[in-house]
Amino acid sequence: MIELLVTCDENYLNPLQVMLYSLKQNNQNDEFRIWLIHESISAEAIAELRHLCHVLEFKLETIQIKEDLFDNAKTVERYPKEMYFRLLCGQILPESLERVLYLDPDILVINSVTDLWELDLQGKMMAACTHTGLIDFTTTINKVRLNTDHGYYNSGVLLIDLNLARQYIKASEIENALEKFNQRLLLPDQDILNHLYGKYILEIPEEIYNYDGRRFMSYLTRSMGEHNLMWVMENTVILHFCGKPKPWDSSSDSRFTAMYLNYQHQKTRLLKNLG
Amino acid sequence: MIELLVTCDENYLNPLQVMLYSLKQNNQNDEFRIWLIHESISAEAIAELRHLCHVLEFKLETIQIKEDLFDNAKTVERYPKEMYFRLLCGQILPESLERVLYLDPDILVINSVTDLWELDLQGKMMAACTHTGLIDFTTTINKVRLNTDHGYYNSGVLLIDLNLARQYIKASEIENALEKFNQRLLLPDQDILNHLYGKYILEIPEEIYNYDGRRFMSYLTRSMGEHNLMWVMENTVILHFCGKPKPWDSSSDSRFTAMYLNYQHQKTRLLKNLG
Repeated sequence: MIELLVTCDENYLNPLQVMLYSLKQNNQNDEFRIWLIHESISAEAIAELRHLCHVLEFKLETIQIKEDLFDNAKTVERYPKEMYFRLLCGQILPESLERVLYLDPDILVINSVTDLWELDLQGKMMAACTHTGLIDFTTTINKVRLNTDHGYYNSGVLLIDLNLARQYIKASEIENALEKFNQRLLLPDQDILNHLYGKYILEIPEEIYNYDGRRFMSYLTRSMGEHNLMWVMENTVILHFCGKPKPWDSSSDSRFTAMYLNYQHQKTRLLKNLG
Repeated sequence: MIELLVTCDENYLNPLQVMLYSLKQNNQNDEFRIWLIHESISAEAIAELRHLCHVLEFKLETIQIKEDLFDNAKTVERYPKEMYFRLLCGQILPESLERVLYLDPDILVINSVTDLWELDLQGKMMAACTHTGLIDFTTTINKVRLNTDHGYYNSGVLLIDLNLARQYIKASEIENALEKFNQRLLLPDQDILNHLYGKYILEIPEEIYNYDGRRFMSYLTRSMGEHNLMWVMENTVILHFCGKPKPWDSSSDSRFTAMYLNYQHQKTRLLKNLG
């Protein structure tokens, strides 16, 4: 059983459904349990997600956070609170769970996640990918900005050892950091992850496990032309639609937009045909 | 039961498999029988196709043409002979068959073909699409060149009334026309179809049933921006990869390449996982 963690608000439920549909299409032989941690998704919306999970033969567990976690943080107005749930998932999820794979909703899973799920974390608390390009100014800026000596990890795909997360990640520490950085946080949860916990992270290859859909040309150049679209389809496991426009926005027109919309339409049709 | 006609040589068996796989993915509720008319595909290659059809729950009937049909035509050296089989399919297929849907192998079927299959042909022998753009010089040139007064039909998607085809289409007439036009035929079978039988064709909308993958911008402009990628995914039934490069060529890099390669990879993985 592969344990999947997702957190979003109601606006992202459709992308979440598309992500789960793509996961099923490309992982027919594995069993999945989906853990949804949320704050305010309506019962009606949850019921639709439950219906999809039933059709896809996924188990679904929902956990609604009622306490006012992080209400002190001034940044929460700019970012959905759900973004922080992944950091504290060790405390939120049942103690019996030892490992979870967190995935952002703006993702397509296009190959088997088995190798990632079974990854040896080598004593680290998490596995994650850095997003580095051919010439990467942001990594250097982020190292200075956040006082770290490693690459800037993207928090969209995280394989988490929950026992270590329960030891290392403290709500009070996150609150202190939020207060300290306050106005200087660009992407609060990702910045916090890097600043406080970057040293506990095992780096895994981004073109396999967190392929930034905007950076096809950068990956192609870096690989001397080897990582063309055929390579991506055959090797990439997780395709991440970072930044804007999102592939479901009408202005999106990238190499991966049609494929995304094809998955989205298949998911919608599946639910419609089943009434 | 939807009766599908395909004709190709061994080089196009992989695209044919991808087309069939996409058909299944987007037509789960219909039953299909595939009629493959060919000249020289090996028993081994047929066996692989049969295996795929079995997995997809399609019936497969293969018909090998042994006679030297069209061996007099001087154009046959430039084009695979299989291209002519669709014109004479009325004679080749069993007399009990009354209707067949012909599809080229360089196609993805991305929505239900039921409406097309059940189309009222209004007494015409075939339904087909013309490929016309916003400003279409080729249609005018083709009207003069082939002495017709209708649009230039693309022969990649044909819904055929076999009883009428048996009445109207004569091998001798095709041979005469091939001889007459000889050096002036650009796309022999398509030219013959238009010249001899264009008047028996019912035109159906190209953006639904024979969407030319190269002409996204033309369709988008013509529709005043309405026919964006989301429209295509929701409305187009048959996406046709006309011209070169084909989406399986390494130089292909269009809006639809990633989606094509995703279907291709899923098909390959399906066969591999089943051993």
